[in-house]
Amino acid sequence: MDVTTIPVPLGPRSYEVCIAPAGAADMAQKIAAALGKSTGVAVLVDSRLHQLSPRAQPLVEALAERLPRVRRLDLPVGESCKTLAAIESTCDWLAENGYDRGAALVGIGGGATSDHVGFAAAIYLRGIAYATCPTTLLAMVDASVGGKTGVDIAAGKNLVGAFHQPRAVMADPAFLDSLPPREFAAGMAEVVKAGLISDASLLDTLEAQAGAAMPAAVLARVIEAAVRVKVDVVVADERESGRRAVLNFGHTVGHAIEAASGFQLLHGEAVSLGMIAALALGTARGVTEPGLLARMTALLARLGLPVDLKDRLVADVLDRMEVDKKRVSDAVRFVLVPRPGQAIIEGIALDELKRQLLAASFNLPSRI
Amino acid sequence: MDVTTIPVPLGPRSYEVCIAPAGAADMAQKIAAALGKSTGVAVLVDSRLHQLSPRAQPLVEALAERLPRVRRLDLPVGESCKTLAAIESTCDWLAENGYDRGAALVGIGGGATSDHVGFAAAIYLRGIAYATCPTTLLAMVDASVGGKTGVDIAAGKNLVGAFHQPRAVMADPAFLDSLPPREFAAGMAEVVKAGLISDASLLDTLEAQAGAAMPAAVLARVIEAAVRVKVDVVVADERESGRRAVLNFGHTVGHAIEAASGFQLLHGEAVSLGMIAALALGTARGVTEPGLLARMTALLARLGLPVDLKDRLVADVLDRMEVDKKRVSDAVRFVLVPRPGQAIIEGIALDELKRQLLAASFNLPSRI
Repeated sequence: MDVTTIPVPLGPRSYEVCIAPAGAADMAQKIAAALGKSTGVAVLVDSRLHQLSPRAQPLVEALAERLPRVRRLDLPVGESCKTLAAIESTCDWLAENGYDRGAALVGIGGGATSDHVGFAAAIYLRGIAYATCPTTLLAMVDASVGGKTGVDIAAGKNLVGAFHQPRAVMADPAFLDSLPPREFAAGMAEVVKAGLISDASLLDTLEAQAGAAMPAAVLARVIEAAVRVKVDVVVADERESGRRAVLNFGHTVGHAIEAASGFQLLHGEAVSLGMIAALALGTARGVTEPGLLARMTALLARLGLPVDLKDRLVADVLDRMEVDKKRVSDAVRFVLVPRPGQAIIEGIALDELKRQLLAASFNLPSRI
Repeated sequence: MDVTTIPVPLGPRSYEVCIAPAGAADMAQKIAAALGKSTGVAVLVDSRLHQLSPRAQPLVEALAERLPRVRRLDLPVGESCKTLAAIESTCDWLAENGYDRGAALVGIGGGATSDHVGFAAAIYLRGIAYATCPTTLLAMVDASVGGKTGVDIAAGKNLVGAFHQPRAVMADPAFLDSLPPREFAAGMAEVVKAGLISDASLLDTLEAQAGAAMPAAVLARVIEAAVRVKVDVVVADERESGRRAVLNFGHTVGHAIEAASGFQLLHGEAVSLGMIAALALGTARGVTEPGLLARMTALLARLGLPVDLKDRLVADVLDRMEVDKKRVSDAVRFVLVPRPGQAIIEGIALDELKRQLLAASFNLPSRI
């Protein structure tokens, strides 16, 4: 199987996403090509990854053989690394270990690791280079492209952060062998989103595979397709001022559901419910074609994702949308999907949006 | 006295620094012109300023009359606002008060306030707009231009931050009436620096005034000249990759002295000593013209700044230069001044630099 390289053309901030079932040596070689001129490289690893995957430590060692002054720092497990206190701890460690403005970071882990490493790189000494090796499906198809980094604060998730593009992203799907099934399914929610907003054929592929174990070659192609969707949107709108908002399909409601669950739901699980909500709303508004809601509900359920919106969409959840950062003043820019592969953005007053969402969700069958 | 407007031409990030002995109404008008389209404006004020200056609250009120949804937040006093914990507290407050991506911040205070407000604006929701009203001489001539923002961490000062340009800077020299003399003198260190690296006539003006109370019109012109020096350098090199390093004149050693004093010395006081060190080093290396060290020592002393380097420049201080973020690997890019108004950058190996600095300082008279 060959390495697939997807260019992310962002002018001086261009880089490549490589989908590389290629082993540690080849991954490290690619990263060394991107970061080789650094004065030192700190490799930041999700501390849970060592238990999950035998592939993490060989990758660190392969990087150490090819890059200058490599030291490893284990990050707090999962989402707990997404705090300003954890960022401060990383930056203190970097300074104490003599990493200067010419240094670079490499992150190995999931989306939280990518967020932490990218944000630390964005603000340490006012900005240094970084690369990521995403090890979860969500991180491969979502965090790998766009340069969005950030951490959580008491008032909400991802409320502080920076746009900071990596120099390279190396994704080895073999890492997914040891990913818990629930996390794999959560990543698939973003793949379905990519299909819905921009690539109808990706939905066909998923429907042909869902429920069965996905062959490695198909999985690599699915990841590639989802990454290409995100690249196309991000390149058209790097700073998220306009078109990039279509990537928020399912997220306005999804984020609120995720927060209301006390983050017991995984991001992708909440996005699955958020997409159901957006499709139900689109159907109620006459924007979404008949049948798409039922079709996607079946696909998401077969992928192992929650689809039972009725229990989740309560007034408290909707109130949480009010601090959502995609809102500009009182109009919510809400993403709707008319038909597979097409997304539109409608400005909807917040009160109207809440009312219509509640009405649409109450019209859903109790169990689909 | 007219408002002096100094354009800072940085393409899409262009803005103006106004030196405006014009009163709260005119200042607020200018800021409203820059931020008027915001969805809400948070005014962040150094909590010490209310005790120091009767001008702060009228300015807040004038802003509230002209801008949408103005609320005031008092920041921890002085340098204590430059922590990630304080930034988090501000961002939580912004979210709790409903400030969204279309919101803007206005900072009223000294350099620490500007650093806090600029950095909070850089990372809140991944970046919102801001403006500053500097109320100290240092903030007017230094923090007002360049977009450098940041906070301190345990490992050192300003080790995390971002480049984030304000939309407007409004400086009313009348705020300086209530500035403690020691802080006024500290600000003058940066004015002397501006003269040394780029504007010989500014040094002549200072020498004609030093020791006497500076008339308001002269003070406004001195501030303007120092701002123009910084604008010229920053515009040539916004991201500090090359020429902008000349602004670090006196700072490589100055920062180390400041840190070694446990920050008992003010930044400008440490920079005064750092400039003496750089002039002594330049003289020893045959780069700096004879007599300039003595001339500047006399000027800085008359301005009320410390010049007795010998007691300060110990090995411990020099070791602190090693985590200085201006160092790229082992070569220190050190700024030297051959003659008034001209600066050059020399790459000096760290060991050699330490040795020569110590030797040069020991050759200084004990009391100049």
